[in-house]
Amino acid sequence: MKTVYSDLHGLQDAEAEFIRGKRVPSFEGPRRAELVLARVKEAFGLESVLERREFGLQPLLEVHDERMVSFLSDFWPRWSEENGAVDAFPNAWPPPRAHRRQTQRIGAELGRFCVDMSSPLMEGTWRAVSAGADVALTAQALVSAGDRAAFALCRPPGHHAGRDYFGGYCFLNNAAIAAQSFIDQGASRVAVLDVDYHHGNGTQDIFYDRGDVLCVSIHADPTKEYPYYLGYADETGEGPGADANCNLPLPWGSDYATYGEALVAGVSRIKQFGAEAVVISLGVDTFESDPISRFKLRSDDFLYLGKTIAKLNLPTVFVMEGGYAVEAIGLNVVNVLSGFENA
Amino acid sequence: MKTVYSDLHGLQDAEAEFIRGKRVPSFEGPRRAELVLARVKEAFGLESVLERREFGLQPLLEVHDERMVSFLSDFWPRWSEENGAVDAFPNAWPPPRAHRRQTQRIGAELGRFCVDMSSPLMEGTWRAVSAGADVALTAQALVSAGDRAAFALCRPPGHHAGRDYFGGYCFLNNAAIAAQSFIDQGASRVAVLDVDYHHGNGTQDIFYDRGDVLCVSIHADPTKEYPYYLGYADETGEGPGADANCNLPLPWGSDYATYGEALVAGVSRIKQFGAEAVVISLGVDTFESDPISRFKLRSDDFLYLGKTIAKLNLPTVFVMEGGYAVEAIGLNVVNVLSGFENA
Ligand SMILES: [Zn+2]
Ligand SMILES: [Zn+2]
Repeated sequence: MKTVYSDLHGLQDAEAEFIRGKRVPSFEGPRRAELVLARVKEAFGLESVLERREFGLQPLLEVHDERMVSFLSDFWPRWSEENGAVDAFPNAWPPPRAHRRQTQRIGAELGRFCVDMSSPLMEGTWRAVSAGADVALTAQALVSAGDRAAFALCRPPGHHAGRDYFGGYCFLNNAAIAAQSFIDQGASRVAVLDVDYHHGNGTQDIFYDRGDVLCVSIHADPTKEYPYYLGYADETGEGPGADANCNLPLPWGSDYATYGEALVAGVSRIKQFGAEAVVISLGVDTFESDPISRFKLRSDDFLYLGKTIAKLNLPTVFVMEGGYAVEAIGLNVVNVLSGFENA
Repeated sequence: MKTVYSDLHGLQDAEAEFIRGKRVPSFEGPRRAELVLARVKEAFGLESVLERREFGLQPLLEVHDERMVSFLSDFWPRWSEENGAVDAFPNAWPPPRAHRRQTQRIGAELGRFCVDMSSPLMEGTWRAVSAGADVALTAQALVSAGDRAAFALCRPPGHHAGRDYFGGYCFLNNAAIAAQSFIDQGASRVAVLDVDYHHGNGTQDIFYDRGDVLCVSIHADPTKEYPYYLGYADETGEGPGADANCNLPLPWGSDYATYGEALVAGVSRIKQFGAEAVVISLGVDTFESDPISRFKLRSDDFLYLGKTIAKLNLPTVFVMEGGYAVEAIGLNVVNVLSGFENA
């Protein structure tokens, strides 16, 4: 399996995030992708890693609101002129029932689109995240051209970014962008399977009223875990998307016995749906030692996870999402990919 | 004119707020009310100041969502058990189109109700803000019992607190609570006139679909100034409240020549409406030296402001809102009240 990678991800390098009023070192950083890359090279060979191609803005605009994309691409000069070269966090955001229309203040604009205190914008954010989208699109193009599967080593992750909002370390929804590409190239039905510990709320948001993209997400119960406000089992899609969204929340402490059952259910749902391709939102923060998560998957379990995904027997794009136990992140990702390849 | 005051406001004493990603000393603090109190005593005599009476929860629930009131009153034990005795700021909040339903995490609950990084909850918040509501209700009761006017020296302020959200240093909407009391006591039509520099978005939100309470707010253009997402001239009310909301945004740099015109328009609107009583959301952050504002009112202008309000010839409850030029806050407030009394 080929891996697509761009070192531009390193331009998104947050010093800190705010958790419950305290400034703490960011859990999401460049070392995550570097360690995955090193392990991928060991497992699949140096020549398995490709640079991204560039796809421009259009694929982003197929899933994101044009106003957010413009905001992200134009942000830094306006912000740094007003505030200096400091990482940008929102300090106010639209209350319920308020407008989200454009203002003349860059700080208020930030509050229109940003939904947490973990996703600072900085000078290199746009270059990093637009390169990340290209990484996903390059992997999708490989699969579209005939590869059974490809791995988009995206960073920062993407699955928490919605149509017109970003947060949860995510800015552009790489998995949604890849899924949309299959549709744009003629597929009638595509699935996204999100195996990150956290609900893929952004992906759900993007496809919620569409019947051509099924979203399946297995994740920690959102009453107890980020993103809290979405990810419940009763969210099944709406309008033409009715019944094309499937959330499988699991309790804290779930091990692979529990997880594997949900995975089999999710995979069978994708088969029933008749998907012609699948995009995997590949987070490995389900790992037992993850510092911000509470599932109990062991490194070997990720082999089974990959093997089960392979049973779909579909063109498959793996897109990197979360995973914060950095010492194990490379092994866990490679185990998923190897489990898939050796199935 | 009598002033109602409770020193319990001092229990809300934030060390810091976050502005554009930086932790800065809070502009809103106990000294504001202490300085107003000192000046009021000088101007109107020690005996003009009364303690609050207690009114319980019911008047709060007439204007606020029960879930937010419970959240505020029950917050601290849950928060401090999980996080220690640190001031509470949100780190994630509901994106567009997400649920606002109850979660099991106190941090996620905070994000459901709090809409900025300036309004930390601390151990004494509930006692301070519920005392503040009682201060407003006591002043309303004085007026209801026959006083021409009374001054509720509330702190923290209230006009940014909506039905089910708090922010902008505000937790309970004291002015809305006072206005609602007139209605509950039998008035058919009441007006709130908000002369704070910032739009009274919470008050507007509370009464937006009601025809019995007219909200008039004169404030800085929200495309450039907090609360950004509400306060535009085209927000005129909806449903039974159609045409019972009047926003008069003014540009940065407005002096009393400009301001006074808007005030006359607002006052005439209240007359036309046929209000039987008026609540003044009295912010003096329109002052030329206010550190966070950009209007150009001088201390003497506040005499005219009070005088113009007196022309309504209505039972009048003044409720303290903003004003951050602490060395002048007492003079400016007393000038409004004296201008009113001597009209
Ligand atoms: Zn995650
Ligand atoms: Zn104000």
